Amino acid sequence: MNGNLDDESYARAALTYLAEPADRWLSGLVRAYGAARSLDAVKSGRWPHGEAVPGARRAMERWRVRLDELPTPDEVIAFRRSGIRLICPGDPEWPGQLADLGDEQPYALWLRGNADLRFNCLRSVAVVGSRAATAYGSYVAAEFAASVAARGWAVVSGGAYGVDASAHRAALGADGVTVAVLACGVDVPYPAAHTELLDAIAAQGVIVSEWPPGRTVSRLRFLVRNRVIAALATGTLVVEAGTRSGALNTARHARDLDRRLMAVPGPVTSDISAGCHRIIRDWQGMLVTSAAEVIEYLSPVGASPVGASTTGASPAGAPQASTLSPLALDRDDLDLESAQVLDAMPRRGGMATARIAQRAGVAPRSAVGVLGGLASAGFIERCEEGWRLRRA
Amino acid sequence: MNGNLDDESYARAALTYLAEPADRWLSGLVRAYGAARSLDAVKSGRWPHGEAVPGARRAMERWRVRLDELPTPDEVIAFRRSGIRLICPGDPEWPGQLADLGDEQPYALWLRGNADLRFNCLRSVAVVGSRAATAYGSYVAAEFAASVAARGWAVVSGGAYGVDASAHRAALGADGVTVAVLACGVDVPYPAAHTELLDAIAAQGVIVSEWPPGRTVSRLRFLVRNRVIAALATGTLVVEAGTRSGALNTARHARDLDRRLMAVPGPVTSDISAGCHRIIRDWQGMLVTSAAEVIEYLSPVGASPVGASTTGASPAGAPQASTLSPLALDRDDLDLESAQVLDAMPRRGGMATARIAQRAGVAPRSAVGVLGGLASAGFIERCEEGWRLRRA
Repeated sequence: MNGNLDDESYARAALTYLAEPADRWLSGLVRAYGAARSLDAVKSGRWPHGEAVPGARRAMERWRVRLDELPTPDEVIAFRRSGIRLICPGDPEWPGQLADLGDEQPYALWLRGNADLRFNCLRSVAVVGSRAATAYGSYVAAEFAASVAARGWAVVSGGAYGVDASAHRAALGADGVTVAVLACGVDVPYPAAHTELLDAIAAQGVIVSEWPPGRTVSRLRFLVRNRVIAALATGTLVVEAGTRSGALNTARHARDLDRRLMAVPGPVTSDISAGCHRIIRDWQGMLVTSAAEVIEYLSPVGASPVGASTTGASPAGAPQASTLSPLALDRDDLDLESAQVLDAMPRRGGMATARIAQRAGVAPRSAVGVLGGLASAGFIERCEEGWRLRRA
Repeated sequence: MNGNLDDESYARAALTYLAEPADRWLSGLVRAYGAARSLDAVKSGRWPHGEAVPGARRAMERWRVRLDELPTPDEVIAFRRSGIRLICPGDPEWPGQLADLGDEQPYALWLRGNADLRFNCLRSVAVVGSRAATAYGSYVAAEFAASVAARGWAVVSGGAYGVDASAHRAALGADGVTVAVLACGVDVPYPAAHTELLDAIAAQGVIVSEWPPGRTVSRLRFLVRNRVIAALATGTLVVEAGTRSGALNTARHARDLDRRLMAVPGPVTSDISAGCHRIIRDWQGMLVTSAAEVIEYLSPVGASPVGASTTGASPAGAPQASTLSPLALDRDDLDLESAQVLDAMPRRGGMATARIAQRAGVAPRSAVGVLGGLASAGFIERCEEGWRLRRA
């Protein structure tokens, strides 16, 4: 959606209006014919090669119900003026790991916010849990989220009350990047009490949705959304969850997607820790007691970005963050703004965000997201003065 | 020590006066020459076949320091009048699983109390943890201990403040059997505040020590003692323990002895749960959240003595306690009193302890221990009325 909107991207945007996410009939159609021809097929009400099986016919009827909600290409482009952009598979900002969802990969994602989704998710932790978190759960969520965010890991969550909100807020407070994956449009303030929180996330992180702007939540949408949280993040941490919590649904997706799964233990007398204990007992989830353990578990072997394990068993000379080499990305992969910011970094020592933004010629507000992305990608790291280059 | 005291048993009793437990030089000597000849060797100050290596000479010197503390055979026999008995490897009451300790097997054990050590330890749980337990740890220790004790499992612990005391008391309160393994003589009220608790344990369970009557505690003795707790019990449960707690030492023994190792999680904000979390994270200990999970984990596969798993994933038709067949023991292995009590059990239905004692012709006080032993061995089980036969 840079400049003009190509046919395929417009068609994918349109399809997010017509179909609920993870509709395997639609995924199959798009895989076989592309999004533009699929959209034409839905408009015409006919499958590309005539005759379709009953399931396909019902799917077609389902999609056509919403034909009158379709936006025009100009209307999709116009969203950009309110800060909403669309990304599609193959776009520079599209997180490649979503391909692990197979036929349930999102058709497209709507984003609102300054941070780069792909960069930030390269090193990210989903911090999820109960809406009705206890003081303990809220405290632990905030502690862990602030600590991983301060170390350059993005905190992914669902924008809900309880654990989600504590995690988002703590990441923001630590000057880190946080990603809210919603079960409604990125412009829908749900829950209403989180209107300001969501705006703050958009300013310093990014809000993500599979649903088009304006769509409201539903119970099913929360569940469908959970797979995207699990797929985006390097690993999923469940802070506090009863045995019927939606967080266990996210945890199950993380496990099924071969993502690292972690849980924070709590008192066995607390029902709201029972889901965490089940994850550890029955799902081979890792018991974690500190943010350092989270990062240790998520980091490539031999490149622990934390100074020392908290188990007390590690030698004092454990590898430091600065020995980490950048992850999947090369400098050539960077978008223009990120490349500018990276060029503006001092060769030696650290520099404050505002000064870097000034040198790079980018708005300080968007520099925060760009810097977080560069940190996630392993190019830079936080230091006392602000940010500094990472030694290779 | 029934009737007379044979030479080997007397010699083993004497050796507990001379050497600290787990002295491999002494174990080697006894293994090679028997206890009586080993005692003679120590008295004479000469190794049986002359010349000894320096380590052996130092060991000999060590043992001889206490020669003047040696009791006479009559004095050992006289302990029985104060309710203290001696058991040696091979005796009917000797727990065969102690052989797993190899060269660190106790030379002999001093016992005070009415319960049969061997029977009761056949189905037993060591419940250990910090002396400075929190309200949470004390509560959980009591809940778990009461619950496993009520199901016929003996609760083994160390008689200390905190988790130990909560576990012992709860087992007693549940009319169960509890075993206190002390780091001092079985007649030494340590800690002094536990004088009454220890007497109650002796009345309904049994107190065990490797040290002869009168010996006091030392820091090293606590650590040496821990291996006996771990070896006696079917599995070890750590309720609450800091990372430097002695309970971790017991846990390590349990792991090294291939016993089942379990820990209760707690808040990650509580230092005193950190040892439990380490057991789960780093030592592959099982996270347990209920007594039912403890029993499930300790029971032979396919013969869970609890009705259903607490994980919610088990089928409704899980095996019931009554389908458990007796464990290692046959009726012919029973001592006279146990055989009398078993014969006195009603063929159908349950009966109260006092009535069973009356029918069997044994003192009600000792019937409690015998019934617990029969339950541990799988012959009988608790029921509403008191005790009933278990179906084969």
